[in-house]
Amino acid sequence: MTAGDRWFSRGGAAALAHTLRVRIPIIQAPMVGVSTPQLAAAVSNAGALGSIGVGASDVDAARTEIQATRSLTGKPFNANFFCHEPTTVNGERERAWIAHMTPLFREFDADVPSSLASPYRSFLDVCDAMSAMLLQEKPPVVSFHFGLPPKSTVAALRGAGIVTLACVTSPREAALAVECDVDALVAQGYEAGGHRGVFDPSRDQQIGTLALVQLLAKTSPSTLPIIAAGGIMNGHGIKAALTLGAAGVQLGTAFILCPESAADRHFRDGLLSDRAYDTRVSAAISGRPARGLVNRIFSDLGGGAVEPFMPSYPIPYAGTKALGRVAKAKGSTEFAVQWAGQSAPLARAMPAAQLVETLVHEVDMVE
Amino acid sequence: MTAGDRWFSRGGAAALAHTLRVRIPIIQAPMVGVSTPQLAAAVSNAGALGSIGVGASDVDAARTEIQATRSLTGKPFNANFFCHEPTTVNGERERAWIAHMTPLFREFDADVPSSLASPYRSFLDVCDAMSAMLLQEKPPVVSFHFGLPPKSTVAALRGAGIVTLACVTSPREAALAVECDVDALVAQGYEAGGHRGVFDPSRDQQIGTLALVQLLAKTSPSTLPIIAAGGIMNGHGIKAALTLGAAGVQLGTAFILCPESAADRHFRDGLLSDRAYDTRVSAAISGRPARGLVNRIFSDLGGGAVEPFMPSYPIPYAGTKALGRVAKAKGSTEFAVQWAGQSAPLARAMPAAQLVETLVHEVDMVE
Repeated sequence: MTAGDRWFSRGGAAALAHTLRVRIPIIQAPMVGVSTPQLAAAVSNAGALGSIGVGASDVDAARTEIQATRSLTGKPFNANFFCHEPTTVNGERERAWIAHMTPLFREFDADVPSSLASPYRSFLDVCDAMSAMLLQEKPPVVSFHFGLPPKSTVAALRGAGIVTLACVTSPREAALAVECDVDALVAQGYEAGGHRGVFDPSRDQQIGTLALVQLLAKTSPSTLPIIAAGGIMNGHGIKAALTLGAAGVQLGTAFILCPESAADRHFRDGLLSDRAYDTRVSAAISGRPARGLVNRIFSDLGGGAVEPFMPSYPIPYAGTKALGRVAKAKGSTEFAVQWAGQSAPLARAMPAAQLVETLVHEVDMVE
Repeated sequence: MTAGDRWFSRGGAAALAHTLRVRIPIIQAPMVGVSTPQLAAAVSNAGALGSIGVGASDVDAARTEIQATRSLTGKPFNANFFCHEPTTVNGERERAWIAHMTPLFREFDADVPSSLASPYRSFLDVCDAMSAMLLQEKPPVVSFHFGLPPKSTVAALRGAGIVTLACVTSPREAALAVECDVDALVAQGYEAGGHRGVFDPSRDQQIGTLALVQLLAKTSPSTLPIIAAGGIMNGHGIKAALTLGAAGVQLGTAFILCPESAADRHFRDGLLSDRAYDTRVSAAISGRPARGLVNRIFSDLGGGAVEPFMPSYPIPYAGTKALGRVAKAKGSTEFAVQWAGQSAPLARAMPAAQLVETLVHEVDMVE
């Protein structure tokens, strides 16, 4: 038993570790496009909880990813799903959005998409089929983003021995998650990279991690464990989160530079450069607010002013990703999606297992 | 010596306390309209650092406030000044803003202001006269918000034995403050209530306290002490901030419910109600982004859409305050300015000295 293990063996942290059936209550965040079965397995094999992001996958692809992860680890891991409101198709908005993006496609002498189709569906749209797959595959932990599944789904997963987590960004969402009977809350602060988990983006309270963890610890109408997320990169951040009342932590940006992640060279270089000091939240990239390293997708796709004709999430993402591809083909990375959190400059490049070991060591070294 | 005193007697916290010449490196934030000489003196007499907010005062009023505070305490206290860019008068914008506000005045059967004049001037506009006053009155600590004074002013204050603090919201601003040669940095996270200290509001990075303290601890090109501000209300928050690398903390919202503050009954009731769970940042109230309890000044004065014709800070404040008065006269508190931070629900009503004692006790009790 290392020193860090002793620290995690106490109180709420120990209870959460027991619930998750891991030694170390640190979660590697699911990050669609960046997390991989290899990354998740490396984290899980090191004693923490690895995650795969399958929110943008259909049932078959999600099943394949879960099986791939299981083939690499015998330890618990987490599969993350998106529970956003059903996507609304609105031809007028889609056409307006294409017109909005047309000058950018033209800049790269590329064909403008004739239509934008939603690149993936909400868990809520495929709940029965996805739940049936989960009950067969039994990933040890299932987490939800952007909202909650039906309470009956959570009960069915629990019946199959699957632990459930819900991401929340406010006390109001936490109360709904508690009512849904999940096993623990991921408290996502405003610092966090990637998509804000806010259930209704028009009501985003933008609560920082330091405030959110304390508010949930005070007000959560139950004793559900709180997993702090957003801005945490090292032992100092982990210890601070535990001090604020969290039982565990979730780190995303901290794992992007691991060799097991799918981040490309340009993304890694960006994280290691001064660009890491400038992250911003924009809803114009996918249709929902998300934080990333600033490049032209933040400045050129617009902000508040475009909202009136912005298509429903995730339809804009189809256009952004197409634009990113044509830009990349012409040598520009200015339209690459590079989600990252506010503490991005603290990211370190090392194998995932070494990072987990380092984090545990640091937690105990922090006074 | 209490337990908490032992905790603060170590490392960076001890060094900061020594610099500020206080026993406890906790600062009661300056809050114009809420902080009072009585509050500052009670905090200082309890061993921490009380503050008065004189950013909206002219030279004579600032002198009077400093003298009033000194008459109540022999201990160090802090006087805070605003270093915003000089206010630009633009008749067209002021008229447009009055037109924008007219329906609200009409709602209360009140006369519409015929013009809007800036209610106060920047320290930078009255630097010579204000500096001369400070060199006479010698408040033990002087802090700056919205920007920095000339480096020569900082040097002159130091020559008179006055300690200087600068509020910063990003590593970029921290580097400028270090270059200006202040004695310590107040790292104001996005959670904080009141006006964002951001130097250039068009470049607000909205960095949360947890991320900001760590980024400054890593990147500040000096060993200047960091004073964490934003979302900190109790021993848990203080200990977390110190864990992240801060040498001290500044708490504002935590002191609003003290009997020594100037907060009115409605503000206090709001803080103690569920309204405390909903704070928001708006630039349309004063001309610069500020966080407060949500009421109709947040919804009805507009957000981004009004910016093109919003007058220069603090001119809109003149209209907002006039509207607040006429609304109050008709029994409405919906246009009252009630700045508060994201952890507002954690505010406690107790005398300032007792709060300081409680905070110190809590810091040591936190594991």
